[in-house]
Amino acid sequence: MPFELTILGSSSAIPTSERYPTAQVLNVLGRFFLIDCGEGTQIQIRRQKIAFGKIKHIFISHLHGDHFYGLIGLISTFNLLGLKNDIHIYSPSQLKDVIQTQLDFLKGEMQFKVIFHPLNFKKPQLIFEDKKVEVISFPLKHSINCCGFLFREKPKEANIKKECIEQYQIPVAQIRAIKQGADFLTAEGEVVPNAKLTTPPPPPRSYAFCSDTAFYPQVVETIQGVNLLYHEATFTEELRDWAERTYHSTALDAAKTAQMAHAGKLIIGHFSTRYKEVEPFLEEAQTIFSNTEVAIDGKTYSVKK
Amino acid sequence: MPFELTILGSSSAIPTSERYPTAQVLNVLGRFFLIDCGEGTQIQIRRQKIAFGKIKHIFISHLHGDHFYGLIGLISTFNLLGLKNDIHIYSPSQLKDVIQTQLDFLKGEMQFKVIFHPLNFKKPQLIFEDKKVEVISFPLKHSINCCGFLFREKPKEANIKKECIEQYQIPVAQIRAIKQGADFLTAEGEVVPNAKLTTPPPPPRSYAFCSDTAFYPQVVETIQGVNLLYHEATFTEELRDWAERTYHSTALDAAKTAQMAHAGKLIIGHFSTRYKEVEPFLEEAQTIFSNTEVAIDGKTYSVKK
Repeated sequence: MPFELTILGSSSAIPTSERYPTAQVLNVLGRFFLIDCGEGTQIQIRRQKIAFGKIKHIFISHLHGDHFYGLIGLISTFNLLGLKNDIHIYSPSQLKDVIQTQLDFLKGEMQFKVIFHPLNFKKPQLIFEDKKVEVISFPLKHSINCCGFLFREKPKEANIKKECIEQYQIPVAQIRAIKQGADFLTAEGEVVPNAKLTTPPPPPRSYAFCSDTAFYPQVVETIQGVNLLYHEATFTEELRDWAERTYHSTALDAAKTAQMAHAGKLIIGHFSTRYKEVEPFLEEAQTIFSNTEVAIDGKTYSVKK
Repeated sequence: MPFELTILGSSSAIPTSERYPTAQVLNVLGRFFLIDCGEGTQIQIRRQKIAFGKIKHIFISHLHGDHFYGLIGLISTFNLLGLKNDIHIYSPSQLKDVIQTQLDFLKGEMQFKVIFHPLNFKKPQLIFEDKKVEVISFPLKHSINCCGFLFREKPKEANIKKECIEQYQIPVAQIRAIKQGADFLTAEGEVVPNAKLTTPPPPPRSYAFCSDTAFYPQVVETIQGVNLLYHEATFTEELRDWAERTYHSTALDAAKTAQMAHAGKLIIGHFSTRYKEVEPFLEEAQTIFSNTEVAIDGKTYSVKK
């Protein structure tokens, strides 16, 4: 079952001819979460051949235009296509007014609702969950209110060993309880410990999106052990004063965060257009976190089981 | 001196992976007029290597999103780049409110003004002129208020023949008057007629943009004799009922307009995504107007002197 991130846009505030503004799609077990929605996101979604109808949850980290200007165009297209699924938007509360002013100009009647869920900028918060997946927002440190998002599978049940079912003649009615950790009591009164009956489930997979932010070690507790981490790296250390003034990170900051969080892999993006090449970012990050990659528009990064 | 149109986007309401929503840049003698500004326009401008600082006049035909969703991103980028030229926007009056709500979220102080000029939907109107160029808006027939735009050079002065200056010893002070049509009186009292002294100037070049519209022969008077005509062609005759219901044109409608206006050349675009190929549009238009081309994103069409 998929757990994969596709980069739709990885530029900083000003798009380039190769990089769109920030947008990503995370496919977790067939759920398509859209993370930020810079200008041109709908074009990139179409290029990736992702069905628009699969997108029902959109997470907007903050209200700088390069992270949300594509939203109205996307909603407009949902409307023109006659889609009917309600769209849930997790964002700073003010986004509702901005979008509503523009929704008033849409052609025809929308057959779906746009439901806004305001983010909490004080502390981490569970903002979405279903049977298998949960999403937690967590505050970042930017020039305006900004959140990151942690997406993770819920813990799975253990696997029961088939041979044990036969050996101990375990009734179907008790299998669920054993998968969830119970021991088994045989007809002879013998207690078979759970560890003997099961193999542990694969560990839940996770992805964290650290949008625009200064170096902010407070996030580490929330994202500890994350498999895949995207962290912005607008500058390199050479322009550390710029990074601090604008509440952005350097590639080294991103790598430090990945290191402290014991992340499996780091992807960096949001490069300032002051830089003509991305190699300096990669080299800087890899000095302390070797499993770093540079975000590339259109590339997909999978987290294996 | 250039008079050339570059197509930045030629899709209809829903962009495709090959066509952006409507946007064009017309370069008239070094003036860069932006015509409509669908989502992604700033990316296309950058790809065309057109300097953002050259764009000072933006013409928005109507308030369907595919014609203006790129505007806020473009203005935001102008701001981030620290540009200082005021931006003039010629558009339906309501656009001001939509943009203002979003401008409130821009980072830092803007060093330029955004000046809105409301369009007239009742009759043709001169909306811009300088020494060499003028722009006239004219009403179209769409589901909401919509204007087309005619861009044309002002008539140039005649060229005075060098050999006549010598032959008749014409004083410098009189050259301007002769270029503007005056005859010349020699010292001997002989009247040299203007036609003998001058060659006619090259005819003024012109471009007309017929944005979203049903077939509307009333435009022909305004655009009569235009060198280059863009006319939307959302459908072919096969879907005439759709065209009529949505106040759009067929390729045949576009060609009829070009024919009636005695246009030099016709470019068609704004194709519905219901069509997988553009050939049917071209074939249909060419049945009555052979000098038709299909708009291609990134292509430039020159009007020669």
